[in-house]
Amino acid sequence: MIDLRSDTVTRPTAAMRRAMAEAEVGDDVYGEDPAVTALEERVAGMFGHEAALFTPTGSMANVLAVRGVVEPGQEVLCEERAHIARAELGAHGAIGGVTMRTWQSADGRVPLERVQDLFAPDLGVYFVATAAVSVENTHNFAGGTVVPIEELRGLRAWADEVGTAVHVDGARLWNAHVATGTPLEQYGACADVLAVCLSKGLGAPVGSLVVGRSELVAEARVRRKRMGGGMRQAGVLAAAGLHALDHHVERLADDHVHARLLAEACGVDPESVDTNIVVVPHDDAPGYVAAAAEAGVRISAVGPRTVRLVTHLDVDRAAADEAAAVLSKLA
Amino acid sequence: MIDLRSDTVTRPTAAMRRAMAEAEVGDDVYGEDPAVTALEERVAGMFGHEAALFTPTGSMANVLAVRGVVEPGQEVLCEERAHIARAELGAHGAIGGVTMRTWQSADGRVPLERVQDLFAPDLGVYFVATAAVSVENTHNFAGGTVVPIEELRGLRAWADEVGTAVHVDGARLWNAHVATGTPLEQYGACADVLAVCLSKGLGAPVGSLVVGRSELVAEARVRRKRMGGGMRQAGVLAAAGLHALDHHVERLADDHVHARLLAEACGVDPESVDTNIVVVPHDDAPGYVAAAAEAGVRISAVGPRTVRLVTHLDVDRAAADEAAAVLSKLA
Amino acid sequence: MIDLRSDTVTRPTAAMRRAMAEAEVGDDVYGEDPAVTALEERVAGMFGHEAALFTPTGSMANVLAVRGVVEPGQEVLCEERAHIARAELGAHGAIGGVTMRTWQSADGRVPLERVQDLFAPDLGVYFVATAAVSVENTHNFAGGTVVPIEELRGLRAWADEVGTAVHVDGARLWNAHVATGTPLEQYGACADVLAVCLSKGLGAPVGSLVVGRSELVAEARVRRKRMGGGMRQAGVLAAAGLHALDHHVERLADDHVHARLLAEACGVDPESVDTNIVVVPHDDAPGYVAAAAEAGVRISAVGPRTVRLVTHLDVDRAAADEAAAVLSKLA
Amino acid sequence: MIDLRSDTVTRPTAAMRRAMAEAEVGDDVYGEDPAVTALEERVAGMFGHEAALFTPTGSMANVLAVRGVVEPGQEVLCEERAHIARAELGAHGAIGGVTMRTWQSADGRVPLERVQDLFAPDLGVYFVATAAVSVENTHNFAGGTVVPIEELRGLRAWADEVGTAVHVDGARLWNAHVATGTPLEQYGACADVLAVCLSKGLGAPVGSLVVGRSELVAEARVRRKRMGGGMRQAGVLAAAGLHALDHHVERLADDHVHARLLAEACGVDPESVDTNIVVVPHDDAPGYVAAAAEAGVRISAVGPRTVRLVTHLDVDRAAADEAAAVLSKLA
Repeated sequence: MIDLRSDTVTRPTAAMRRAMAEAEVGDDVYGEDPAVTALEERVAGMFGHEAALFTPTGSMANVLAVRGVVEPGQEVLCEERAHIARAELGAHGAIGGVTMRTWQSADGRVPLERVQDLFAPDLGVYFVATAAVSVENTHNFAGGTVVPIEELRGLRAWADEVGTAVHVDGARLWNAHVATGTPLEQYGACADVLAVCLSKGLGAPVGSLVVGRSELVAEARVRRKRMGGGMRQAGVLAAAGLHALDHHVERLADDHVHARLLAEACGVDPESVDTNIVVVPHDDAPGYVAAAAEAGVRISAVGPRTVRLVTHLDVDRAAADEAAAVLSKLA
Repeated sequence: MIDLRSDTVTRPTAAMRRAMAEAEVGDDVYGEDPAVTALEERVAGMFGHEAALFTPTGSMANVLAVRGVVEPGQEVLCEERAHIARAELGAHGAIGGVTMRTWQSADGRVPLERVQDLFAPDLGVYFVATAAVSVENTHNFAGGTVVPIEELRGLRAWADEVGTAVHVDGARLWNAHVATGTPLEQYGACADVLAVCLSKGLGAPVGSLVVGRSELVAEARVRRKRMGGGMRQAGVLAAAGLHALDHHVERLADDHVHARLLAEACGVDPESVDTNIVVVPHDDAPGYVAAAAEAGVRISAVGPRTVRLVTHLDVDRAAADEAAAVLSKLA
Repeated sequence: MIDLRSDTVTRPTAAMRRAMAEAEVGDDVYGEDPAVTALEERVAGMFGHEAALFTPTGSMANVLAVRGVVEPGQEVLCEERAHIARAELGAHGAIGGVTMRTWQSADGRVPLERVQDLFAPDLGVYFVATAAVSVENTHNFAGGTVVPIEELRGLRAWADEVGTAVHVDGARLWNAHVATGTPLEQYGACADVLAVCLSKGLGAPVGSLVVGRSELVAEARVRRKRMGGGMRQAGVLAAAGLHALDHHVERLADDHVHARLLAEACGVDPESVDTNIVVVPHDDAPGYVAAAAEAGVRISAVGPRTVRLVTHLDVDRAAADEAAAVLSKLA
Repeated sequence: MIDLRSDTVTRPTAAMRRAMAEAEVGDDVYGEDPAVTALEERVAGMFGHEAALFTPTGSMANVLAVRGVVEPGQEVLCEERAHIARAELGAHGAIGGVTMRTWQSADGRVPLERVQDLFAPDLGVYFVATAAVSVENTHNFAGGTVVPIEELRGLRAWADEVGTAVHVDGARLWNAHVATGTPLEQYGACADVLAVCLSKGLGAPVGSLVVGRSELVAEARVRRKRMGGGMRQAGVLAAAGLHALDHHVERLADDHVHARLLAEACGVDPESVDTNIVVVPHDDAPGYVAAAAEAGVRISAVGPRTVRLVTHLDVDRAAADEAAAVLSKLA
């Protein structure tokens, strides 16, 4: 079976497993796990921020990150198919107590005029105030699309002007970085707080991080414990993340090549594929998914007439070619 | 001073005060207040629903109504300037634990295609499901616009098909009823749950109601107590509501006439005014508001270049004429 | 029927209704209701505090008061039958997000050693910290018992030392004041924040207040709106409260006399009755309640073998005598 | 340094690391991680329950377990130093929305009469109902004390009678099992839901489980994702847990021997030590902790005059002897 359902399905490589087995660990609730601390410092540095916090999942990282810049009763604005709106089971409301309003965009982008239109200044006791704008980059449900750094810079400049925060859901920001060559630090400079993930394209089994100011991260550390994310010898997981940063970032370019190759096989314009996600329109998505599975390729229906393919670490060129052959035959 | 800031500023009339003073009351937490019970039964009946619940404010009614059809972790869809999104201080997230996504519309309407596009079916553990669509009718921040009954019927039919609920924020549904002649029962038939208000155009000092199925209202009664809305001899307030239903519904037509008259004075097309709210574009909204106040007319800036006027029970024809004279001079 | 179930059942007198009918009112959400403002200033002054906030219920006042001194994730300590623990439907957790631990006392008192034993200092990220101690005075479920001012002073002195807040649930603090002669200001001096109620012994139909520092009350005002407690022409209710403060405080002494008289009739030592609540042990509480009802006296079973009687404004001496005769026959 | 601060500080052994490195894993959010599934089935079976759910921490397991039997607005009763009350940062209120009341006991035990006294039946809309009684076994802050199975059986029988649930916080239930010889299944039979931990005495780096009925666990799975606990290839952690169950349960007896040995050295009656925790009264706890650290032994001050020592996997007999020598010299 070739599994193209998601880049979350990657399994740790032998080398990554060795790194985990050899990790120097301690009790991270006491702040004594050297691997976790090394990972947090390294990731904070990569984005030019002061501090970072390791979390068991990207969802927890996003909830802590948004909550770090939005108080209960305030709102965060985001694109209407954003992961924070669609795929975190309502945690931002149910746990964070924050409110959302959404804009529409064809490709997960951030049309500044629409954001400005939605923006609600702090008018005191009567109205909900916009405390943050959230950008997902790359944007999963829009098809792994990249939000260009120029767009982020425009958002950043305006946000500074009106005094609102920018949250970046960077679960796949590594893919944007590799696809565009934009340094991570430049993405970091556009955000007050980021959530980045190690267990998607980077192939670590578990782990995400909140990245931001020291004070914000210190508060997130308390809230992480309250949410049940204060793990003990988490260094066994952080070691996988450190290994992934050493070995699995640049190779994301391969995933992007494979994705375009699959797009072509499915009759989708490869130029429309920014990174490792291909969205394929199909009259009978569930039927297509079933037929592909029978032929040895697992893909997802993400709507009644929409299929999604995701390339990743566990799909090499040969597997991509094989999947392409299968899918082009089905198309 | 002629106060056109909002129809919430109305003061109880002498007759209404008499009705309140003569109200037969009891302890409503024990379900023993005859005036409250009479009001709840009457309003439920007006909308063709089984039951209703009296609440101290429209905000509490909306939170209870939405929560009655949306569980924590599920979502409600609404227009992006809806009162539930903008003006209830984030209570739906912070207290109800529910999540929102929003559509844009020029006039507060409910474009079915956009709603369908946003709609998220229940896909199990991974995704937030749409549990309700909320319609504000009339739509306050869009300028007191009416959502036509045909549009609501289309929404209702589709909602039944896909199995989602319809919430109507009917704080000013009385205005829509009087402006269009559509019977209240027809509005009721389009909604699973409504929130209606007595202290806006109807002129009662305090009070709103949640309207819906008996079971939903019974649960709302428990949650009302938890939110601190379980008042004792609330019949003194319910009596004002009963009086308003007897005497202040049909006269809303006067407010609508006055609103068009004011629109004309401000250079706004009177045909664009559906009910009792007039939105006036102005280059310097705060300056305009200040100048009007100096000339004896209180209006609101609801944006840097937007002014709002609201007609109501305490503004008779003479006052409307006087305000129109003042405003036309300023324009 | 003579209703001794609770002092919440009182109905506004003719004079109170007149005061309500003549109230000068405005839109209190805009801070423009003169009766509400007068009531808030008067009550704040009575307790020697800076500010007060009118709320529709005692439950909302308590939630806002506790939340004013306890952050989500911190704890409040209270007696195990306290109204905030037992009778507010879990709002302090479900809405306030605060945590409780409880002590046991025979009479609702505040044994300082037990409080000190429970007290948890702020030890950083690992432990829940005690942010407040709550005292209910008089203590409803303990039988209207008074917490003596000396006990409160001892608590206050220790609380200052360790840096924790004192919340007083003073729904019936008026009864403690009249029973003991202790000035309200002395009670106020022992508390960081109080909740006091107008619709129990004082006989107003609706209304309570949060009393405390200006900043705390300003924050409570925002949270009140979020909870759905921001009423408009609330002056019609505040006027009843002002009338009650003028006319119904000192007369609570009559209720206390009547309570002792009823205690005697039920075989309870009148000396054990501090104020207007009598707790009567009975082998078959529900049976006793039913028999009393048949004989024209409504009382409550508050446990399988515990009956409660409450005297109030609507039970005059003649009614108390009649009820005593009925109950002594049943005993 | 010999670290006796907590049994959370244990580091995975070489054999455990090998087991982790060789774990067969999959995407557990999709329910496809064989190691996680094996662990969940095994632990459920050990306690005679239908199902179990792997979580990143004991705190998350407790929040999910309690929430599985207590709705927001209901209450759970527990001992006043229980971990759920003291050491989970108020998550049961702030996230679960549940309310607590507490009893006092010298040794973390469950005095049935006090529990019965606190118990609040479901009386409808007015009162908070007791939905569960929580027992911590062994009880951490009481000094690792065992709640005897007879006491649990008495609680269970009464709970069935009145229709309330029993939650067992079994973070260290393995220690109780080894210390008393009571089969795990007998503990399981006394509980509606348990939380058990792999990263304390059992020495796994990360991981706990919720154990209970299938339906309860299915709901907890959804809430786990909402709380940010839905990890992907969690089998790398589950493998450590499976290894611990194979190799680290029976050896807890050694920790118990070492704890008594340390008790003796500190002048504490070894007979008072039930398991692996020793509580030592000392006039100057912080000073004692500092002196011990200087002499190479890390212990904790858990109060101004209370020191705690915990034995575990990383403290062998030689280390225990050495620590005993150091501490007896200091005493």
